Amino acid sequence: MCELLGMSANTPTDLCFSFTGLTRRGGETGPHKDGWGVAFYEGKGVRLFHDPEPCATSQIAEFVAKLPIKSKTAICHIRQANVGNINLSNTHPFTRELWGRCWVFAHNGQIPGFTRRTGIYEAIGDTDSEELFCDLMNHVRQNLQRDATAEQLATTLVALSKSYAEQGVFNCLLSNGDWLFTFCSTKLASITRRAPFGPACLKDVEVAVDFASETNPKDVVSIIATEPLTHDEEWDVYERGEWKLWQSGEVIAQGKEDVPVHKAEHEMVSPKNMPRDCA
Amino acid sequence: MCELLGMSANTPTDLCFSFTGLTRRGGETGPHKDGWGVAFYEGKGVRLFHDPEPCATSQIAEFVAKLPIKSKTAICHIRQANVGNINLSNTHPFTRELWGRCWVFAHNGQIPGFTRRTGIYEAIGDTDSEELFCDLMNHVRQNLQRDATAEQLATTLVALSKSYAEQGVFNCLLSNGDWLFTFCSTKLASITRRAPFGPACLKDVEVAVDFASETNPKDVVSIIATEPLTHDEEWDVYERGEWKLWQSGEVIAQGKEDVPVHKAEHEMVSPKNMPRDCA
Repeated sequence: MCELLGMSANTPTDLCFSFTGLTRRGGETGPHKDGWGVAFYEGKGVRLFHDPEPCATSQIAEFVAKLPIKSKTAICHIRQANVGNINLSNTHPFTRELWGRCWVFAHNGQIPGFTRRTGIYEAIGDTDSEELFCDLMNHVRQNLQRDATAEQLATTLVALSKSYAEQGVFNCLLSNGDWLFTFCSTKLASITRRAPFGPACLKDVEVAVDFASETNPKDVVSIIATEPLTHDEEWDVYERGEWKLWQSGEVIAQGKEDVPVHKAEHEMVSPKNMPRDCA
Repeated sequence: MCELLGMSANTPTDLCFSFTGLTRRGGETGPHKDGWGVAFYEGKGVRLFHDPEPCATSQIAEFVAKLPIKSKTAICHIRQANVGNINLSNTHPFTRELWGRCWVFAHNGQIPGFTRRTGIYEAIGDTDSEELFCDLMNHVRQNLQRDATAEQLATTLVALSKSYAEQGVFNCLLSNGDWLFTFCSTKLASITRRAPFGPACLKDVEVAVDFASETNPKDVVSIIATEPLTHDEEWDVYERGEWKLWQSGEVIAQGKEDVPVHKAEHEMVSPKNMPRDCA
């Protein structure tokens, strides 16, 4: 299992707390030791950090966890490789420019043998995840207008996600810096923090935070992750096929598709098939 | 003046020494305090660090200067802004994917009012530099084949660079990770270090290195920078209109174009026109 972490907020917010929890799973409390990456939007710009080292011991991850980077949208991924070697070009999140925005994508899942349809975006590395991203971007460029409404965008992204989830496991986070699209094929959870803010403790490392002292009453901050990161808060667990489009910390569109259990899912959770991919 | 720094080497090499010298010019020994960025290729992957803070005092620059990142090709830029605000999306180097490779570009110069021709690549920020990069990428995609020879590539890049340099100041570094293209409109210098390696001292900060103790006899490492970074080595100063295509530390093609002194050059060096752009 790779793990995903996303943030959508109505005010620039640092991801330090959640990032600290997630990174423990990168070779310490979890097996996702095959690299990690994070993208922080600042306006239309994006700060990217990628490292093929295990994030639990990565010098760069340790540095980033302490950086006071504030962002309204962020996407993070820790990797357990199967398809594609452990190297920088296979490390999520992946990025491409479309319509003058930087689109960022991270994937948890596996669609063995997936090949993108023809289009201008091509994979740099050799993961099925990057092929999926390029396929998605090619389809969006060919079928949506740059001024598409959130509803049109969601319709297209959901149809694509459903078609991928029918071929394998496809949990994803996708953003252009304005919105954050999330699709759950097998596993995803979210939490929205707003006033009155309270304390929270991470599951994976003994770190607690009192959000009341770090926020303003109008702040709305949502965290989306493969598994809940705290043990004393109530997370919403996505159902199979459920999707949410986030903006400024709020869900602006959501729904649920019929996504069958895929044969590959059983194969992937079988210990016989280790090392398994990002599912 | 913005400043450029590039490296081409035949073995993965760290840029720490040159990067340390360059970063002093970002608000300490030079006025380039409006952000900085660096791209290190590792195979087909790229590590990117961008920061709109002055690099002389940037926490991230201090960290990167000590990171043992080894790369055969790297591109770094420190910015003194004129066109475009000081923010992340205006911070060089810029990147785009083409033919399954990540292309990286940094520009020193100014072409006021430049607008790219039609094509799929669009600027994310609002600098003339990123417009130039997108124009160049659109032209390359439309006019070259993915298996173009170095000669074909150079012919196209030189013709484009010349056309830009006729409109303003255009010193650039461009790479796809395989080669490094460099064009001098007004100012660029290079040095190639090979056995027998000797010591070198930075101009901008009291740091010396003995390359003999850090290299193997077969290593070839070339550094390209706006101005020489050391005071005890002999740098080759590019002439106006001179270009070099580097690969594995060696020049594999070079030439010189007739580039007239542009009116904008005089305007830009005039103190009356401060703050000037990256020339």
